[in-house]
Amino acid sequence: MSRYWSEIVRTLTPYVPGEQPKIDGLVKLNTNECPYGPSEKVLAAIAGQNSEALRLYPDPQASALKAAIARRHGLAESQVFVGNGSDEVLAHIFMGLLRHAAPLLYPDISYSFYPVYAKLYGIATRAIPLAEDFSLRVDDYLQASREQGGNGGIIFANPNAPTGMPLPLAEIRRLLQGNPDSVVVVDEAYVDFGAESAVGLIAEFPQLLVVHTLSKSRALAGLRVGYAMGQADLIEALTRVKDSFNSYPLDRLAIAGAVAAIEDEAWFEATCRKVIATRERMVAGLQTRGFQVLPSAANFVFAQRPGSDGAALAAGLRERKVLVRHFRAPERIAPFLRISVGTEAQTDALLAALDAILA
Amino acid sequence: MSRYWSEIVRTLTPYVPGEQPKIDGLVKLNTNECPYGPSEKVLAAIAGQNSEALRLYPDPQASALKAAIARRHGLAESQVFVGNGSDEVLAHIFMGLLRHAAPLLYPDISYSFYPVYAKLYGIATRAIPLAEDFSLRVDDYLQASREQGGNGGIIFANPNAPTGMPLPLAEIRRLLQGNPDSVVVVDEAYVDFGAESAVGLIAEFPQLLVVHTLSKSRALAGLRVGYAMGQADLIEALTRVKDSFNSYPLDRLAIAGAVAAIEDEAWFEATCRKVIATRERMVAGLQTRGFQVLPSAANFVFAQRPGSDGAALAAGLRERKVLVRHFRAPERIAPFLRISVGTEAQTDALLAALDAILA
Repeated sequence: MSRYWSEIVRTLTPYVPGEQPKIDGLVKLNTNECPYGPSEKVLAAIAGQNSEALRLYPDPQASALKAAIARRHGLAESQVFVGNGSDEVLAHIFMGLLRHAAPLLYPDISYSFYPVYAKLYGIATRAIPLAEDFSLRVDDYLQASREQGGNGGIIFANPNAPTGMPLPLAEIRRLLQGNPDSVVVVDEAYVDFGAESAVGLIAEFPQLLVVHTLSKSRALAGLRVGYAMGQADLIEALTRVKDSFNSYPLDRLAIAGAVAAIEDEAWFEATCRKVIATRERMVAGLQTRGFQVLPSAANFVFAQRPGSDGAALAAGLRERKVLVRHFRAPERIAPFLRISVGTEAQTDALLAALDAILA
Repeated sequence: MSRYWSEIVRTLTPYVPGEQPKIDGLVKLNTNECPYGPSEKVLAAIAGQNSEALRLYPDPQASALKAAIARRHGLAESQVFVGNGSDEVLAHIFMGLLRHAAPLLYPDISYSFYPVYAKLYGIATRAIPLAEDFSLRVDDYLQASREQGGNGGIIFANPNAPTGMPLPLAEIRRLLQGNPDSVVVVDEAYVDFGAESAVGLIAEFPQLLVVHTLSKSRALAGLRVGYAMGQADLIEALTRVKDSFNSYPLDRLAIAGAVAAIEDEAWFEATCRKVIATRERMVAGLQTRGFQVLPSAANFVFAQRPGSDGAALAAGLRERKVLVRHFRAPERIAPFLRISVGTEAQTDALLAALDAILA
């Protein structure tokens, strides 16, 4: 605390990311990274830019990347916004599109960065509880909005985090139909592992914004690239905020690598298939060991074992060099572990460690 | 304009960076990039990280980079904040340290992003006119502050942009002594080309924050790395804002490249020397051709030619494939061109193009 700080700084409760420890032989299943390295084409594209050209500023609009994303999703370049990781993209969305008089709605259990952004930008919020079975009920959002005479926007992750549970596209459509007057953000960080994307609804709904990241299904958490898709009018708001914040958020290497990643559809499909197959085997293995696993369409699962303490299990795994994520709050998720899908060998190591703990 | 936009978006007037056109054979002297490529050690360090490791998130604190910067400047790691270009660092400074009830003071002619940040974060400002000779007068800041009963902070560039003129360290000390109650930000983007850094004053003044970039004297505009230095208390405010905005602003390649850049002191010194030597030759060449050149301690010069129109000169140079920067406003700088220091050959090309125009 200091007399020099802006008032807002005193009130901030920053997001705490999963640990990035440097332990040899660690089975790292705590931050939902891809267990496989990125496409060789990505590494080649980066190598091609790793040159004298680094002395020059990057393209401030990252047009080559926007064009590649637009092609991939059947959109226009004006319908794409890119940023330094989807975390930065989300920050600009909160500032540019979700800052209104009425409160922003989001699930009480979801990506825990949402309330952090809201606090940073002074946005009023209302957390809508997930159902008993951890599903998102569209009716609860429509009702909350009626009760308070509207909302300042709605944001949720699909599949949701840390549950991994997907929301069917028909439900998203119903939400959009019932909520035409404020922006609806669908954070699809994990969509490629089995959920239905809402990108196809963009033409129909001017209030829809869909957010993707290259950190998960493109195996590029270390490169920091994310993007948003929506009608040009929403994208324009984000561009204005970005151009008042940092003209060049993506460096030359990130732009080149991201273009190659988006264009390598074969690598992408094969990798998602592998992750999904391993997830199904991991789910079966966990169930065999007495775990209840929420239905996951993500590259992680959320699982509890009745009779076992979540924090104790996480600590026991850590002792055996298997790192998973455990959230103490809110209370109803404290029994759960969030476990990223690793390689086949990492999955074996996880299950063996659990056997040792439960023996 | 859209009903979905946050109110602030309507009022934004984004910063417009210098063009990054793709024209073959262009002599690009418009964005103050280094005319020489970065150190070979930087390229090697990046190549070393361009691997399977990109699937993993970077170190959210970029500790290796903070340590390298701290070593280089004789500071503690807790006195260093790093970001995705000094533009992002400056944005967080505005949000975290310059947002107060009293207005922020800055020179009427300076880096034109300052008022853009202020608008984004709703910060009241008061522009203090530079003197007739474009120098910054410390007394004007102290007097403005007295008149209005304080200020919410002071920010300026040293050397100033786009003038290139340095402020002596004794004057900065005098400003700090007269202004103990609000943060003073010295933006030293260009300091390595001949001005005196204020870093040595950090131990003495808790309100001092010094900002550096790797875009100019480290030839890494394409990598996006900048940093701030100050007492730990100020740095903590920036870290809190950053951790509420984006946990991982620097990617793995940027961290690795930046560490190598900071550590290669020999490359750095040789490059600064070369740029300074070319600047002096360019200044002489411009003076011979009737230009008045402000005294520059930067990697660019600010020059006008009495009797010649600034915009017309810039357009004439552009026709001859020499790109310089011209600002239409404010009016008293409209006669000037801001010309980056290029290679020896680019300087020859500039002077030859001027000869052709003036013939």
